[in-house]
Amino acid sequence: MKTLITNCYILDMVGDIPKITRKDILINENIIDIIDENISIDDFECQRINAKGMLIMPGLVNTHSHAAMSIFRGYKDDKMLMDWLENAIFPVEEKLEPEDIYWNAYLSCLEMIKSGTTTCNDMYFGMDKTIEAMIETGIRGVVSWCITDDSIKDKPEKTSEFVKKYNKDKNSRIKVLVSAHAPYTCNPDTIKLCVDLAKELNTGIHIHLAETQDEARIVKDRYEKSSTEYLADLGVFDVPVILAHGIYISDSDIALMKKKNIKGGISHNPISNCKLSSGICDVVKLRKNGFNVGLGTDGIGSTTTLDMFEEMKTAAYLQKINTMEPTSINAYEILKMATIEGARVLGMENQIGTIECGKKADLIFIKTDKIHLQPENDVCSNIVYSANGSDVEMVMIDGKIVMQHRKMTNLDEKDVIRHVKKIAKRLCK
Amino acid sequence: MKTLITNCYILDMVGDIPKITRKDILINENIIDIIDENISIDDFECQRINAKGMLIMPGLVNTHSHAAMSIFRGYKDDKMLMDWLENAIFPVEEKLEPEDIYWNAYLSCLEMIKSGTTTCNDMYFGMDKTIEAMIETGIRGVVSWCITDDSIKDKPEKTSEFVKKYNKDKNSRIKVLVSAHAPYTCNPDTIKLCVDLAKELNTGIHIHLAETQDEARIVKDRYEKSSTEYLADLGVFDVPVILAHGIYISDSDIALMKKKNIKGGISHNPISNCKLSSGICDVVKLRKNGFNVGLGTDGIGSTTTLDMFEEMKTAAYLQKINTMEPTSINAYEILKMATIEGARVLGMENQIGTIECGKKADLIFIKTDKIHLQPENDVCSNIVYSANGSDVEMVMIDGKIVMQHRKMTNLDEKDVIRHVKKIAKRLCK
Repeated sequence: MKTLITNCYILDMVGDIPKITRKDILINENIIDIIDENISIDDFECQRINAKGMLIMPGLVNTHSHAAMSIFRGYKDDKMLMDWLENAIFPVEEKLEPEDIYWNAYLSCLEMIKSGTTTCNDMYFGMDKTIEAMIETGIRGVVSWCITDDSIKDKPEKTSEFVKKYNKDKNSRIKVLVSAHAPYTCNPDTIKLCVDLAKELNTGIHIHLAETQDEARIVKDRYEKSSTEYLADLGVFDVPVILAHGIYISDSDIALMKKKNIKGGISHNPISNCKLSSGICDVVKLRKNGFNVGLGTDGIGSTTTLDMFEEMKTAAYLQKINTMEPTSINAYEILKMATIEGARVLGMENQIGTIECGKKADLIFIKTDKIHLQPENDVCSNIVYSANGSDVEMVMIDGKIVMQHRKMTNLDEKDVIRHVKKIAKRLCK
Repeated sequence: MKTLITNCYILDMVGDIPKITRKDILINENIIDIIDENISIDDFECQRINAKGMLIMPGLVNTHSHAAMSIFRGYKDDKMLMDWLENAIFPVEEKLEPEDIYWNAYLSCLEMIKSGTTTCNDMYFGMDKTIEAMIETGIRGVVSWCITDDSIKDKPEKTSEFVKKYNKDKNSRIKVLVSAHAPYTCNPDTIKLCVDLAKELNTGIHIHLAETQDEARIVKDRYEKSSTEYLADLGVFDVPVILAHGIYISDSDIALMKKKNIKGGISHNPISNCKLSSGICDVVKLRKNGFNVGLGTDGIGSTTTLDMFEEMKTAAYLQKINTMEPTSINAYEILKMATIEGARVLGMENQIGTIECGKKADLIFIKTDKIHLQPENDVCSNIVYSANGSDVEMVMIDGKIVMQHRKMTNLDEKDVIRHVKKIAKRLCK
């Protein structure tokens, strides 16, 4: 099927300077086919979308999430990390049934789509149920079974099985990675197993890196090196990586990562890092050193929201405070992190992240004729600093309209809420 | 006229522990009259509101704004403070006509109301036009004519005239203060003039205090004291004060303010402080020392948004990062800062800031049955960390419904946008 979008302003996110053009977009099945002025098409079956009053931009890319954690929204919030994990999160996680994972991930996928995220990179357990939720809600998902020393079990096999099932199909919305949890929860054997698996399956590794001072201390005590050195020495940087958090990375760690010429990049999770008092990732320095830095929400447990517009705002605020230079990062750079740079972190820059011919039709439509988005002196600034997820009026993923007029097009949102409420009532006392 | 609100969950913001009750509210004209279970009223003319699916809480109190700056949204953004002021803001401000002030303030009032703010404390010039916009849009306003050494002119007279016009009427939605701009723009004579005026008019002073390192340096060089000492020595703390920003306040400044037993408090503007790289206000320390700390948006020029939900989030994030303790402040404390504590900063705690009998009916209705606000393990956490201004479904100010179903009830929003677009086109090249 073809889809013709007319009357739209396009922020394509191509290049180093923001560019807004008034063009039409023709989509062939799930691929952007033509971007031009006044496209006319003589096809009776062509779906036509009048995007008047909308700004169209690439869907947002969430580079680090744990979708199945949605029941933890606000649960025993504002606590110290270890107290929160041990007394709130872990005891409930032990009781999660596959059906719970499915509904929890379902709610998160809806929240992401409804706030403009079209791709998320998710790490957790019970990922077969998360994949089901992703497929049904229509989001594009990168998934991995989180491996730690204590929970290897069938995860390498599951990873292998699902890589074979999804990674070769060019039209699959699901891509599978290997995931080692973190340097402090994976001993050298576990890390090596993950590296070997990633090499064998020709895929990348998603891992938490340098998230807290505690982690840095534990890894130093255990191996006499930094987390980055620990991973480098075990060959992690020989495969593409998605490094979540990356707060405690020294100049010599940066030099090491540059020497290793890492593929992929860092997932910056500003809200989670604030709420858990983890620290501030030096995004400006990492980007100056040539690394791709995407944005991520982490799980709802630590951020309470999956709205990537909030991550964009917070990312900008933190860098301006961290550097004490308001010029250290601008709105367009933040938008790039949330789109094409995030795509690069996931190794998907040829498929998503910009509006260009040949790319997947993952588009979001922002309603700009609202009080809080006027006047439009600088559209990028308005989107980053004043818009929020609720301003996304329509979402197209893989050529399909999954949300329109702020409602999911083919599923019952209230039913999802009912299921998750029931799970929270049962598990979150 | 009476208004009966039924089927509502009320977060009244009374006391130190969040309390959500299922009660009805009866409003008599503009005053909350009865809060009880199943109020029945036999009055044909009573307006009835079914608040099913809503959480009702006190309207948010914005303790520091410059409403007429709305045309500066995103204008020459992400710049160094002095470059931005001298090359972007000041040249345009010089050209602002009274009619421009009116429309710009109008847009800001709408943005505030539509994101749940029912009271704002505004400082700028041309305040008679801002007052007009406030009266027409329905917001509750505290206003002051900003006085500097270079722009005293008729401002004391204007202040005096408007204090007499508005401050004695208990039903007035407008209250007038004296405003000295800042320690670095007001010499001792100017400050003393403002103090005398405030005493004479029996009102308070709204002033910027300790916003930047530059200010601290300038004041130190000029007077050999801190900004706080400078104001204290000139008698500013002998009248009620609203101290905007309060970032560079030392322990000895705090001791001095405690000794002076200041009335009013500090307006914390987290987003402006980030975007201009001003620094982080130590809210936790100020509150521990017994000061009232409210939240403010500052002008759109520096924050790009007037959504107080964004200020709440950012305030929490900054404190948790500044202290490196996630327990340093919690969601309910943040909500207090945005409501009753803000009311205390403005000296209006007997009128607004909580839902209690005898107080003004300034209420906001939040729609909670949304994907991103479920499940409800902790309603306060959901409101602070996941809700945004767009979740405010209805707003009542002074007993009148000014917004319903996200639309202003009796004015043309599109017309306001048209006017402000035109002004921006003329002035912001």
